[in-house]
Amino acid sequence: VLPLLSPSPVVDSPASAAHLLWLVRTGRARSRSDLIELSGLSRSSVSTRVEQLLAAGLLHEAGPGRSTGGRPPRLLSFNRDAGRVVGIDLGVTSVDVAVTDLAGSVLAATTDDLDIADGPDRVLARTDELTAQLLRSLGCGKGDVRAIGIGVPGPVEHATGRLVHPPVMPGWHDARVPDHFADYGCAVLVDNDVNVIAVGEQSRSPQLTHFLVVKMGTGIGCGIVLDGHLYRGSAGSAGDIGHIHVDDERTVLCACGNENCLEAVAGGAALAREAAQLGLPVATPRDLIGLTVEGDRQAVALVREAGRRIGEVLAALVNFANPSCIVVTGGLARAGNPLLAGIREAVYRRSLPLAARSLEIRISDRVDDAGRIGAARMAIDGCLDEAHVDALLAASN
Amino acid sequence: VLPLLSPSPVVDSPASAAHLLWLVRTGRARSRSDLIELSGLSRSSVSTRVEQLLAAGLLHEAGPGRSTGGRPPRLLSFNRDAGRVVGIDLGVTSVDVAVTDLAGSVLAATTDDLDIADGPDRVLARTDELTAQLLRSLGCGKGDVRAIGIGVPGPVEHATGRLVHPPVMPGWHDARVPDHFADYGCAVLVDNDVNVIAVGEQSRSPQLTHFLVVKMGTGIGCGIVLDGHLYRGSAGSAGDIGHIHVDDERTVLCACGNENCLEAVAGGAALAREAAQLGLPVATPRDLIGLTVEGDRQAVALVREAGRRIGEVLAALVNFANPSCIVVTGGLARAGNPLLAGIREAVYRRSLPLAARSLEIRISDRVDDAGRIGAARMAIDGCLDEAHVDALLAASN
Repeated sequence: VLPLLSPSPVVDSPASAAHLLWLVRTGRARSRSDLIELSGLSRSSVSTRVEQLLAAGLLHEAGPGRSTGGRPPRLLSFNRDAGRVVGIDLGVTSVDVAVTDLAGSVLAATTDDLDIADGPDRVLARTDELTAQLLRSLGCGKGDVRAIGIGVPGPVEHATGRLVHPPVMPGWHDARVPDHFADYGCAVLVDNDVNVIAVGEQSRSPQLTHFLVVKMGTGIGCGIVLDGHLYRGSAGSAGDIGHIHVDDERTVLCACGNENCLEAVAGGAALAREAAQLGLPVATPRDLIGLTVEGDRQAVALVREAGRRIGEVLAALVNFANPSCIVVTGGLARAGNPLLAGIREAVYRRSLPLAARSLEIRISDRVDDAGRIGAARMAIDGCLDEAHVDALLAASN
Repeated sequence: VLPLLSPSPVVDSPASAAHLLWLVRTGRARSRSDLIELSGLSRSSVSTRVEQLLAAGLLHEAGPGRSTGGRPPRLLSFNRDAGRVVGIDLGVTSVDVAVTDLAGSVLAATTDDLDIADGPDRVLARTDELTAQLLRSLGCGKGDVRAIGIGVPGPVEHATGRLVHPPVMPGWHDARVPDHFADYGCAVLVDNDVNVIAVGEQSRSPQLTHFLVVKMGTGIGCGIVLDGHLYRGSAGSAGDIGHIHVDDERTVLCACGNENCLEAVAGGAALAREAAQLGLPVATPRDLIGLTVEGDRQAVALVREAGRRIGEVLAALVNFANPSCIVVTGGLARAGNPLLAGIREAVYRRSLPLAARSLEIRISDRVDDAGRIGAARMAIDGCLDEAHVDALLAASN
């Protein structure tokens, strides 16, 4: 079963071929009879659409199923090899790329260092190069790619893929990411990094319908899945928890102009600075993680206190949103237990019993690849929606 | 157009008669042709279901529409008089009851004082009496009631209508509210007060798809509508913001056992106590509102400061959830401008520009009746869902 964040019925017409395809590719339907029952469509309408999907190569006949009395039903299966999908997770200092099949299984993946400040032209040209190499290693070309999904570390208009004043991506304001992948001739979906990570985490734990993904890196952000759907907010800025005000004895100025934002007090950059002031050999957040993992007492204490500060904010969000799980990810998540212990301490102390009773808080077990996998999953849903499937059928029938 | 919080496609099968009825009663479809286009069903399937809905008295033929060339289409209209609905808003000291038609228009309404501590038997018997009086005044009886919706000031299992340790409703734990209305022989839906108020506010402003309703009374709670849907959380406790921790110079013990909960610092009961300590002639929150409206400087300052404390919490929730509107309601909302000014000051100072840019914060213009209207709307959706409509059709065909 392929878990999807946007169940087809909400987006696509229930009578569309895309909806029938969705019923099969998510494991809900395995035969024409299943499709008739689940869609409410007539036998002849289902037949017509299934024939079109078979002709377009999106479905396969999978041989006879088990008979329940009469003629055994012919089973249908989704052709996950009807195309390739690219998932890209663009970070401030690195890029992760994966090529997957149409079910989201990773066929090849790679990672490279980069500097986001090199700007969109250089960074995206390098990303394109890595993607082309991966495709070649699989014996494929750009023409095999059905969709590209990209997560970026900044605010982006999801509908157009345009960056909007991204604070940690100098030179990227107004950049239209999809334009740089025009020669693939396919759908290109762009979203911020925490949203694609949330999709990636859900693909691993499809039973999770209400959860938060908290990314702690240089900055702090949050991906939100509610009632099984990625939640973006009224203007697309939901989950921007890094600038929630926290009380502190000190007054810490944040890059945003406000004082005592969570990110300015407990983000990776702030912690590295604080560690250096304590005389620890730390230049970057990664150095601090290293010391913490080695068990340096000052580093461990710093990280645990950062966990508490984040936990205090999360406790309020737990009371408000009542999630069943919080997944902690990002570079600082590699610090492991000291971070988790601080977060748990504050959340469980300050949340309501009813909201906290069944709340799980854990470190992601896929810090490295949830981003690119989520980006690919988002791309798959994008390229198999009603408009795209109708276009595929029109071209092949 | 009747705005609904749970669009039928999510809950009901798109091929169901309930879905076709929903398309008509929400103004989306006005003819059989509209229904064919919007549902994806065949002409004959739509015809069959429409005939059943006509026979059951849920739809009317509304005469010929405007021709676009051929035979003019016969228009369909929803029979809003096919039954009556009761909306009840149960408070700690009063109860509001309304009888509406199936489109949610109020036909008769009443309010009475009560003491919730009298327990479920006495309080619900009195509520039943008020309802029966209202129905008689309309020339109706209990048999005309298709559904009853009830908002209660405490946590409730929505699926069963059972109260769960409600802190301000002594004697109500485990009470099953629907049992007390069994002689109506209809659906009885129970939810907490802020949720039904949120439904009532949305029925007034159907364009609002992302908003919070903050109820400030003795306690503080929040109803949440996201992506057009009432949001309840993974365990039904979403919106319980009264026990979010706030920093304060003082240490204020909350009834929940924690310290410095928002409700303990800025709720109506806390403010009344604080006003009395200042020597103001205040025994209840209502007295404090009276002084505030009269312009007493100390009362105004107290209320404004309470607004700031609530605004500090709301600022964090605005960054997290990115709503387009916050509606302030409940008894303290009657204090008006001093409260609103305090809330706005804190929210706009601490929210991110992107999240706050298009954020509206206002006092409800229906503090008195959003609860009972929302309860009725919730009941209408409940009694016209797939299961109930199928049962109606089976009984009448």
